[in-house]
Amino acid sequence: MRYRKIPDETVRRLPAYLRGALHLSQTGVASTSSKELADLVGVEPWQIRKDFSYFGDFGRPGVGYSLSSLISQVNEILRLDTRHKAALVGVGNLGSALLAFPGFRTYGFEIAAAFDIDRRKIGRRKAGVLIEDVAVLDHLNARGVRLGIITVPEASSQDVTDALVRTGVKGILNFSPRRIAVPRGVKVITIDIAMDLAHLPYYLPGNRR
Amino acid sequence: MRYRKIPDETVRRLPAYLRGALHLSQTGVASTSSKELADLVGVEPWQIRKDFSYFGDFGRPGVGYSLSSLISQVNEILRLDTRHKAALVGVGNLGSALLAFPGFRTYGFEIAAAFDIDRRKIGRRKAGVLIEDVAVLDHLNARGVRLGIITVPEASSQDVTDALVRTGVKGILNFSPRRIAVPRGVKVITIDIAMDLAHLPYYLPGNRR
Repeated sequence: MRYRKIPDETVRRLPAYLRGALHLSQTGVASTSSKELADLVGVEPWQIRKDFSYFGDFGRPGVGYSLSSLISQVNEILRLDTRHKAALVGVGNLGSALLAFPGFRTYGFEIAAAFDIDRRKIGRRKAGVLIEDVAVLDHLNARGVRLGIITVPEASSQDVTDALVRTGVKGILNFSPRRIAVPRGVKVITIDIAMDLAHLPYYLPGNRR
Repeated sequence: MRYRKIPDETVRRLPAYLRGALHLSQTGVASTSSKELADLVGVEPWQIRKDFSYFGDFGRPGVGYSLSSLISQVNEILRLDTRHKAALVGVGNLGSALLAFPGFRTYGFEIAAAFDIDRRKIGRRKAGVLIEDVAVLDHLNARGVRLGIITVPEASSQDVTDALVRTGVKGILNFSPRRIAVPRGVKVITIDIAMDLAHLPYYLPGNRR
């Protein structure tokens, strides 16, 4: 199936809709409304209707959205209907937490390789994944790895990015607060946890001016 | 100063603008354009102009936005002009990574307390913060802590949330994939790392239908 070009903001929200739909379908219901899904996900109903309008309307008036259609279409659009292998670079606290994290499997991800620079870590396993020497980070393409997860200190993040890109990685989840440069055709998503925390105080009561 | 009600989506983007502005101001320039800031942050210029229109226009045609005004206004709107104390619950891999994470200080946050259930961890320090028994998580209000960071296993996240809320926490950064329920007046931001990763495959080339 072909889809129109979908705005980045919509693409960003699709996994949340998918998770909401999976949750609802586990409760045994067959369909949902934009209102119900919106409440679950934390957006406005009109936003959901608008987002879904980009890929053909599978909602029906008075019936709502079929959860099975919704799940299969979002999976297809996001290419989550195939498994994706990711390599993680930097097995510190955060890297270790991610390696042990069961949530990735929900979306068909497998952290298939882990790399570090520390000789004491290389050769060991963490959450079942062998830790390899970052110096040999060059066979990922042949191993079917297209995604990278960067959890190294800020100073190394660009070097690691360059190495990942050279071996054919096309998508990077970056936890370093430093901006990393990539060639066209490589997509970077930066997760800045401090920045996520930074909009919480806005909502603190008693602080209002 | 009083501001109009600002949409959540705008509030969510403000920290990114702030970080961009701080970055630019460190390079020695005094003003920026919506185009320059947009490129840096990764949004569209019209989005920035629209977001800034909610809190009075400090941009000037042909001159752009004064970085010092931008920084002080965003800091004021987000209430980042005062220090905020947070308590972290769950000193596992992820919790340890966050305790050691320097990024929080950028926005005036201090993780002032850490809690765990594990007797072997209680009484020790991690990144300078004493790990306390989660059973005594009830003096946070008196200690000036209004924010909580939850890095416990999914099964305990609601109990920890309830305990944090009882002691006066008004904002929670939740890393558990489970949805947590809070009373009105408490704001929760959930960070679902797997969900962030889930929209990367959409951008992988060669996958297009």
